[in-house]
This record gives sequence, structure tokens and C-alpha cells, in this order.
Amino acid sequence: MRFDILTIFPDMFSPLNQSIVGKAQEKGIVEIHTHDFRDFASNKQRHVDDVPYGGGQGMLLMPQPIFDTMDQFPHEGARVLLMDPAGRKFDQKMAEELANEEQVVFICGHYEGYDERIKTLVTDEVSLGDFVLTGGEVAANVMIDAVSRLIPGVLGKQASYEDDSFSSGLLEYPQYTRPDDFRGMKVPEVLTSGHHENIRQWRLRESLKKTLVRRPDLLDQYEANEEEVKILDELRHSCNEPHDVIE
Amino acid sequence: MRFDILTIFPDMFSPLNQSIVGKAQEKGIVEIHTHDFRDFASNKQRHVDDVPYGGGQGMLLMPQPIFDTMDQFPHEGARVLLMDPAGRKFDQKMAEELANEEQVVFICGHYEGYDERIKTLVTDEVSLGDFVLTGGEVAANVMIDAVSRLIPGVLGKQASYEDDSFSSGLLEYPQYTRPDDFRGMKVPEVLTSGHHENIRQWRLRESLKKTLVRRPDLLDQYEANEEEVKILDELRHSCNEPHDVIE
Repeated sequence: MRFDILTIFPDMFSPLNQSIVGKAQEKGIVEIHTHDFRDFASNKQRHVDDVPYGGGQGMLLMPQPIFDTMDQFPHEGARVLLMDPAGRKFDQKMAEELANEEQVVFICGHYEGYDERIKTLVTDEVSLGDFVLTGGEVAANVMIDAVSRLIPGVLGKQASYEDDSFSSGLLEYPQYTRPDDFRGMKVPEVLTSGHHENIRQWRLRESLKKTLVRRPDLLDQYEANEEEVKILDELRHSCNEPHDVIE
Repeated sequence: MRFDILTIFPDMFSPLNQSIVGKAQEKGIVEIHTHDFRDFASNKQRHVDDVPYGGGQGMLLMPQPIFDTMDQFPHEGARVLLMDPAGRKFDQKMAEELANEEQVVFICGHYEGYDERIKTLVTDEVSLGDFVLTGGEVAANVMIDAVSRLIPGVLGKQASYEDDSFSSGLLEYPQYTRPDDFRGMKVPEVLTSGHHENIRQWRLRESLKKTLVRRPDLLDQYEANEEEVKILDELRHSCNEPHDVIE
């Protein structure tokens, strides 16, 4: 899979040369190309931004450097993403969708905003969340990380994404590793019992409890089986008892 | 303001040495300290992860390297953040809240998860969104960017955050900069008219229209004035007319 990034800060993508995505690049599963669009600014000063028509504070990304940069590399059939607070919220479903593409292009704005005509190049306006960033670069890093790990061959054997919080539809149960007693804090006994069925039941219950307390919205879409429905009923009952705290 | 980051990939924070946050560090307004917790692993192999008690795939972050790293630097009264899909959703309100703190610590996990006892060090479990990442580093980059730009003195004169999409409560109107005709695409005439009142009205209407179409949920919390209520009524009316597309 190929990612192309239009940015005036190509060095801001160095995190993708590290760790799992870095290894995916070494293996050739993921290709990341950054394009510094300042190199294509047609004015002598190499400005990429200018003041807004109609007045107002801040500078806007001009269309010319972006269009001319896009002309420099093949991107037929590619998804072209622009970060915009009004865009579609990025989530695991969108990550899965993008992981099936052959090429994804990111246009990273900086400054206050961008000329509206740049949107004619764009297939998807995307928002990482309801917050404001100094530029699109750190958001693009997040999206490329989330998409890359879903591409077959990127995650090793020991790290599988089948267990992910959002792929089961429930939040994960608490986990523990060595030592079994750390500064007086002990691992729950059931987990060191070796009794597989008890462990399975404890984990399922903890997972349902956490989801019920923290993200009940996830349960609306979750298709619970008979065992899970029973546990959820118990949890909801104990939740309604006065003075009975379930977490 | 001081940020401390516990990570085994300190180089993944190099984006914060660039652009606006980089300048804020040079000016001394923002201090960023990374702590490689692999340096504090007490085992000979410097492992920071181990298999889960009770069985299961993947490796978990051990408590020892994290606790021992936290013992190495002052963090009394600091907010200590851990990324967790079950955590509070990071948004502009949380960014504003953190921008008022003197110190924020990020614990960046990698691998499948972390030992539950690490949570006893944590003041806030935070989620950047409903998606899964290879590690917390790219998410922490985003949060530090969003928080830093709100600290007085970080944004220059020309880039003010008063105009931000989420601080007005409405999405932004379309913006245009030079040239007024780019590859046949023209700037709306009103913006080059020099008629300030017409420009103000056009922008307000476009802003309300975009919010109504794309993020009607934002209008639920928005306190519209008389002029805005009238425009919204008109927009809603035209929206209900058959064959009348408002965008």
C-alpha cells in the first residue's frame, strides 16, 4: 500500500520510520512518500499561503502549490484526504476501509485554513476528533498508523488485531503480567489458578462490566449471546441496588 | 508548561521539535522531556513486557519499568495520562483543561496492552477516538500539539485561536485566497466586492449552512441570536423543499 503526503514539514513523519510501521516500510508492505509542496510554489518567495479574500485574520493555503504538487505523482483512483473539522469522523471502520485501498493521499494544511478550491481534489474530508491542531501532520501520522497495522503482514504473529477492543465490540478486560505481587499489589487469584473456564468467565464478566459502565453506547450495537445477556442482566441489577458499587 | 513522556520510542516525538510547538520549546514556553523506560527495566535483557497471567495472545507492559521511571522525575500534582480505548474522549474542552496545568505526564504503551496496576499511577485514562493504534506515541503527539497551541504566547499574532471552528460553536465558512481565478475556478463575487456587511452576512449564512448539514449536533448547544435564528429557519425550510439541494 502506498501513502502520499503533501506537507511543508516532511520531517514530521519520522515517527512512521520507527517501530511497527517502520518495519512495514522496510519489508516493502507500506510505502510512504512525502511531497514538500513549498518546492512547487510558483512565486519567487516560495510562499504557500496568502490572506483571505473578504478580510479576516490568519493565512490560507493557496491552491496553486497543492494542485501543482498533485500533478507530479500518479494518484488515479486514490483516496485523497483533507483534514477538516467538518469532515467525517475517523474511526476503526474508516481505518479498515482505507486499509483496502491501494493508495491514500493526505493533504496536510497548516496555518488557519485553506482555499476552498483545494477541495475539488479531495475524495474525503476527515476529522480526527473535536479538537484543533496546529496542522494536519500529527493527525495524518495517527491515521497512517491505524491503517497500516491492518494491512496483512504488518503485525507480527504475537500481536494480532483480532483481539482489539473495537473488533470484538466490547472493551477489554483488565490484564496482568509479572510479578504476581508488585509493591503489594496482587494479581487476581483466578488468573493464576490455571482453571481455564473460570478465567474465561471472569474475563467475559469484566469485559461486559467495563463496557456497561464506560461505554454503554457500544452495547447498543453488540449482539450478545445467551451467556452474555444473563451476565448483563445481573450487572444491571447490581448497578441499581443502592450503595452497591459495581466498579 | 512541562510535558513528560514515558516511551520506548523517544524519537517518535520529533514532530514536536518542528513548526509551532518547536518554536514554543525554543522560547521556553513549553518543555518536553522524554523518558525511555527501557532504561529502567530491572531484568538483564531489559524487557519491558511479558505474557499475560491467565493466558492469551500478546504481550503486556510490566509495572516495574513504569513505576521506576516515574520515581526518577518530580510529578507532584501533575496530570498523568494513559491512552485507553475505554478512557475519556479527548476533545477541545479537555485540551483547554490541560493547557491550564503546570505538568502533564503521558504513559505511552506499545504492544497489546499493559498491566492493570499501572493505572494506580494515572489520573486520566484518555482515548483519542474509536480506533486502534500500534502505540500511544502518535496519539500523545496529537494531544501535546492541541494543548500547546492554547498556551499564551505559543501562537503568533497572525494565527489566533479565537477563530477556531470549535471555539465559536459553528463550523467555519468557506475561505478563498489568491488568485481569484485558478484553473477556471473563481472566488465568490461577494468576497471581492469590498462590501463588508454583505461579506459578513454571506459568511454567517455559509457557516450556519455547513453546520446544519454536516454537524447539526453542534447547533443543539449553540446559543443563536435573532439574526442566526432567522437564517437557520430559512435554511431548514429550503432544506425540506423537494429537489432543492442546499449544498
